[in-house]
Amino acid sequence: MSTADPPLILVVFDLVGIFVFAISGALVAVRRHFDLFGVLVMAGTTGLGGGFLRDVLIDATPPAALMDWRYLVVPVLAGLLTFAFHPTVGRLERQVDVFDAFGLSLFCVTGALKAVEFGLGPIPAALMGMVTGIGGGMVRDLLASRPPVVFSGNLYATPALLGAAVAVGLDATVLPLGVVVLTAAGACLVLRLLAMVLDWRAPLPSGPANV
Amino acid sequence: MSTADPPLILVVFDLVGIFVFAISGALVAVRRHFDLFGVLVMAGTTGLGGGFLRDVLIDATPPAALMDWRYLVVPVLAGLLTFAFHPTVGRLERQVDVFDAFGLSLFCVTGALKAVEFGLGPIPAALMGMVTGIGGGMVRDLLASRPPVVFSGNLYATPALLGAAVAVGLDATVLPLGVVVLTAAGACLVLRLLAMVLDWRAPLPSGPANV
Amino acid sequence: MSTADPPLILVVFDLVGIFVFAISGALVAVRRHFDLFGVLVMAGTTGLGGGFLRDVLIDATPPAALMDWRYLVVPVLAGLLTFAFHPTVGRLERQVDVFDAFGLSLFCVTGALKAVEFGLGPIPAALMGMVTGIGGGMVRDLLASRPPVVFSGNLYATPALLGAAVAVGLDATVLPLGVVVLTAAGACLVLRLLAMVLDWRAPLPSGPANV
Repeated sequence: MSTADPPLILVVFDLVGIFVFAISGALVAVRRHFDLFGVLVMAGTTGLGGGFLRDVLIDATPPAALMDWRYLVVPVLAGLLTFAFHPTVGRLERQVDVFDAFGLSLFCVTGALKAVEFGLGPIPAALMGMVTGIGGGMVRDLLASRPPVVFSGNLYATPALLGAAVAVGLDATVLPLGVVVLTAAGACLVLRLLAMVLDWRAPLPSGPANV
Repeated sequence: MSTADPPLILVVFDLVGIFVFAISGALVAVRRHFDLFGVLVMAGTTGLGGGFLRDVLIDATPPAALMDWRYLVVPVLAGLLTFAFHPTVGRLERQVDVFDAFGLSLFCVTGALKAVEFGLGPIPAALMGMVTGIGGGMVRDLLASRPPVVFSGNLYATPALLGAAVAVGLDATVLPLGVVVLTAAGACLVLRLLAMVLDWRAPLPSGPANV
Repeated sequence: MSTADPPLILVVFDLVGIFVFAISGALVAVRRHFDLFGVLVMAGTTGLGGGFLRDVLIDATPPAALMDWRYLVVPVLAGLLTFAFHPTVGRLERQVDVFDAFGLSLFCVTGALKAVEFGLGPIPAALMGMVTGIGGGMVRDLLASRPPVVFSGNLYATPALLGAAVAVGLDATVLPLGVVVLTAAGACLVLRLLAMVLDWRAPLPSGPANV
């Protein structure tokens, strides 16, 4: 439990990120023909899983999402909307990906700053920011019995690590929190969008992988 | 670690639930041709996984199962029995399912009450009760590389959530603990058995899921 | 966070174990055609996952690996080396398996002793030692969407449990730490190497598994 309420701007950003990630989890659930309950759980774990992982690792339990009802309502809403309107939501894949980039940018920054607040050094804090950004999607893929999409060559984790690192670096300066958050999230967002537009890929192992 | 020993009735109910869940995990392990060790681990994680998840999230670590040898002996016994007599146990599938309904009813109630004891609000506590009930089976399915059975349309999580919610609601009254536990577990059990007998299903997404 | 720095010998042993396990995770990642980032994450989770699981369960969070940069550098190095030289590393499978036996021997001992230090009784502490040894590989297999290799009949978990039990038993005597560690790790190592050389197998369920 945090000693003080986090700033409102971080809460709002967090909730928006959770909503977007929850939709991505719910869409995967619909495509796997999971039932309504499965869609809601996939929405919840995808939206909240990254933060849960971070909070358990940095000893910030119980996670904020279990102490604040807003964090639970958001993924339920996202899950119900996706369940009801999944053909429409599914056709908006490209738009969902763009919102997902926003979610990633917000999560990596809020996650990194929370890790700093709980006493982690700069490098582990940046890592925890990245984990916050990519963890929910990894739990989603585990529950859907598929390899993590984040390992498939899309430039996805790198922007999250960049945003988290910028956040940790600027947080050590005298800059106001708003500037820190917007600059760091902006760095992640720009790199992620550029990667989507220009189809930048992460390097793959070269040569045959002898098994 | 809890500040006080939990009431004996909750411990007995917990152990019975762990035994039944452990059998379900061990049966899946036998069917995947896991070795003896795998059968024991699957018994342990299925029997104890839901409680571990809850304890890690509500900051009740180390989990009771690591501080009390009875919690470890029970899944080992269930695993050994299943390993030795799996053709018989496997034929008793219907009976195992009924016992599983009892296990679910006990876990959702004890899980929710423990979450209340550790300071969670009513809605998160009810959720934690449900997680205690369904978490072990989800870990079992992850380790068996299959999608969670609880997402497949059986009415399974809903009874757990009902029982947990009733437990949280009645716990706030002056009713004695025994009445609270039996009423809440009974509500879960009746709904689960009705769902099994009448083949009630959770709603599935309608229409084609465009991929 | 530990109240005192652990003895240097335990840290060195831990780092060597992490390096070896990280290589095994990175090799699986290369064979799944994960990208560079996936290789690094698989190296990190395989090398550090067992310790993370243990630390979260025994309430030793944040895990040492998040408070000490050496624990993060080692799996990154192992991942980069494997990514660059995977055909060579892959051909050294047998040698990697031998080093893995060393890693297992070190992890089960350091894990068990840490659990004792955090107040667990002998049996749970031995179990936590085993979890430290096999947990990273289980997370690796989960992320690679395959059943845990440790369940497949190799005698792998038993040596880890033996080493952990010996460590817990000797730690209660007046023997110096170095003797405790070397004897316990040696017991695990010898049993594991014998199992590899003589192809000892864990018992499998007998008869058909009726589904």
